[in-house]
Amino acid sequence: MSEKQTEISTLGEFGLIKHLTEGLEKVNDSTVYAVGDDAAILKYPADTEVLVTTDLLLENVHFDLTYMPLKHLGYKAAIVNFSDIYAMNGTPRQITVSLGISRRFTVEHMEQLYAGIRLACMEYGVDIIGGDTTSSHQGLVISITCIGDAPAGTAVKRSGAKDTDLICVSGDLGAAYMGLQLLEREKVASAGQKDFIPDFAGKEYLVERQLKPEARRDIVAELHQKGIQPTAMMDVSDGLSSELMHICSQSNTGCRVYEDRIPIDYQTAVMAEEINMNLVTAALNGGEDYELLFTVPLTDHDKVQEMKGVKIIGYITKPELGCALVTRDGGEIPLKAQGWNPLKEE
Amino acid sequence: MSEKQTEISTLGEFGLIKHLTEGLEKVNDSTVYAVGDDAAILKYPADTEVLVTTDLLLENVHFDLTYMPLKHLGYKAAIVNFSDIYAMNGTPRQITVSLGISRRFTVEHMEQLYAGIRLACMEYGVDIIGGDTTSSHQGLVISITCIGDAPAGTAVKRSGAKDTDLICVSGDLGAAYMGLQLLEREKVASAGQKDFIPDFAGKEYLVERQLKPEARRDIVAELHQKGIQPTAMMDVSDGLSSELMHICSQSNTGCRVYEDRIPIDYQTAVMAEEINMNLVTAALNGGEDYELLFTVPLTDHDKVQEMKGVKIIGYITKPELGCALVTRDGGEIPLKAQGWNPLKEE
Repeated sequence: MSEKQTEISTLGEFGLIKHLTEGLEKVNDSTVYAVGDDAAILKYPADTEVLVTTDLLLENVHFDLTYMPLKHLGYKAAIVNFSDIYAMNGTPRQITVSLGISRRFTVEHMEQLYAGIRLACMEYGVDIIGGDTTSSHQGLVISITCIGDAPAGTAVKRSGAKDTDLICVSGDLGAAYMGLQLLEREKVASAGQKDFIPDFAGKEYLVERQLKPEARRDIVAELHQKGIQPTAMMDVSDGLSSELMHICSQSNTGCRVYEDRIPIDYQTAVMAEEINMNLVTAALNGGEDYELLFTVPLTDHDKVQEMKGVKIIGYITKPELGCALVTRDGGEIPLKAQGWNPLKEE
Repeated sequence: MSEKQTEISTLGEFGLIKHLTEGLEKVNDSTVYAVGDDAAILKYPADTEVLVTTDLLLENVHFDLTYMPLKHLGYKAAIVNFSDIYAMNGTPRQITVSLGISRRFTVEHMEQLYAGIRLACMEYGVDIIGGDTTSSHQGLVISITCIGDAPAGTAVKRSGAKDTDLICVSGDLGAAYMGLQLLEREKVASAGQKDFIPDFAGKEYLVERQLKPEARRDIVAELHQKGIQPTAMMDVSDGLSSELMHICSQSNTGCRVYEDRIPIDYQTAVMAEEINMNLVTAALNGGEDYELLFTVPLTDHDKVQEMKGVKIIGYITKPELGCALVTRDGGEIPLKAQGWNPLKEE
C-alpha cells in the first residue's frame, strides 16, 4: 500500500482517542462534558426519560472487512444503536465508543472507522461523549452504547400491543439479507483473483441496505407529527418473524400477518430468484433491515394509512390464536423465530 | 470435569440473557425499565447530573483466566466502572453488560461470571439494565457501561486543581500490581504440573487487591459528610504517576509529590524486595489500585487530615514548575507517565 500508515503505538491510547475525537463540537444541550475524564457528564430535564442501549460488534462474527469498508462499518455501528433508540420512540443524543484494536490496524484505519461514526453522529445529531480504546489480540472489537431521550411517558416498549391493534412496518424487508448473500457470493468469486471487480449491477440497493443502513428517524418524527402513539414498537434487526414474536410474547397476544402485505423491493425478489430462495422466508427471517415494526390502535387506521413508506401488514389477536402468517391462498402457517442468532450459528 | 456443563447454544441469546438476569430486582428509583426491550428507560430528577463511563475488557489483554476465577472477573469488571463514577464524586446506579462468548464457555461459566457482576451490583446498589450477548471467535469479551449520578454542580473533573491545593490519595498503592507479578510467577511455576498449589502465604493482600478490588465508595461518602468538595479527582487505574500528570495537564498546573508520603503496604514492599524491583517505581507506576486521587484547597487541610485511610502526599504548583517526585534526600525527579498502556505494550 502506498498510503501512509502510522502504527497506533506511536500515539498510545490517550493520544489516539484525542486524535480521533479532535474538533468534535457538542450538538445537544444534554451533553455537559464529553471525552476526557473518568466519566462524561449529562444533564437531562426532569420531564424526560433517558434511554440506554448497547451493541457489541466482533470482527468475523458481525462484520467481514473483506467487503465492509471501515468507514461504512463505523457508520453502521452507530446507526444500529440509533435505531434502537428510535424503536423506543425516542431521540438518540450521545454515544460512547469502545474499540479493541489488533496490530494489523493503523491510525489511518481508525480514522476511517471514526469518519463513519462521526458522519452518522453528524447526520443524526448525536454527540460522542467517551469510550475506551485498547489493544486486541484478535481482530476488531466495537462496543457502542447509545443514550437517548423521550418526553416522559412517551417511550414505547414491546409489551403494549393489544388485541385488534394494527401491525405496521416501515420500508421494505429482506434487502439487507440479500445484500449480504450477494457480497458473500462475490467474495467467494473473487477468491485468489487480483483486480477482481464484483458484479453488483442492478442490485445496488441490496448492497446499500447491507453496507449503509439508515435508522428510521423520519418515521418517528411522522408518528409524533400525526399524534400517533404506538402501543408497541421495535426495530427489525433479527427478522420480522422473530421480532413479531417478541412483541406478541411480551404483550401476551397473538397475531396474523398477511403474506401479500409484506413490503419487498423488486431487487430483493430478483436476488431471491437467482439464489433459489423462498422470497417470503427471506423477508420474514432476513435481519439487519433496521425498519420499524409497530402496533397502533385500530382507531389510528386512517392516520397510519396516510404515512408514506409505512404498510399495515396484519393485526394483533388474543394470545390463544397464536402467531401466524396468512398465505396468499388464505392458509395459515405458524410463525417461527428463525432470526439471525449468532449464539446459535456458531 | 464432573460438573454439569450446558452448551450456550441450547439457550440462545435471549434465553441466556433471561437466564442470567432472572430475579433481578431494581434498587434505584432512577431505573424505570431494565432488561428486555430495545433500550432501558431511566428517569433522573432535574437537579441531577448523569455520569456515563465505559470499559472494554478482552481476554489475555486485560485478564488471564488461568488465575482469574470467572466470578472474580465479573466482580472486578463491574467494580472498575463503579470506581470511575466515584472518581467523579458520583454514585453508580445502572450498568449494561455486553458479552462476547467463545465456544469453550458454557452456561455454567457465564453463571459464574454473572454471579460476580450481580454480587458487585448488590453490594454497591447498582441495577443491571441491559446489554448484548453474542458469540466470539476468540475468547471472552466484556464491555460494561456504567451510569451514575451526582447532585448538579458537584461532579468533580480532572481539570479543577489549583496552585497550592493539597494532593491526597486513599488506601495504598502498588499492591494490585505486585499481586499480578505474584500470580504470573505462580502461573509460570505451575506450567505443566497437575495439582500445583500456588504459594501465596503472607501475600494474601496482594492477591486480593488484584483479584477482588473494591471501589472507594466510603471515601466519597466521607468527603460529602465532611463537606469537602475536591477541586479535581480521578481513580488510580493506570498508576499514580500517570494519573497525576493527567490532573496537572488538564488543570494546567505542576505538582510536587513526596516519596516518603506515598502509602505502601508492607506486603507490597516485601514482594518488591523479592522480585528485585524498586518499590517507589512500583507504587508510582503499578496500575489497578482503584484508589482515589484528589486535590483539595489548602483550607481543607485539617478536615482531610482527619480522614482515615487518606494521605496527603504533596501539593499542586504553578505549571512552569513541572511535575516532580521529591525524594527522601530532598532531590527532585521529574514524573513520567509510564502507566500501564495496553496500546503500547503489544
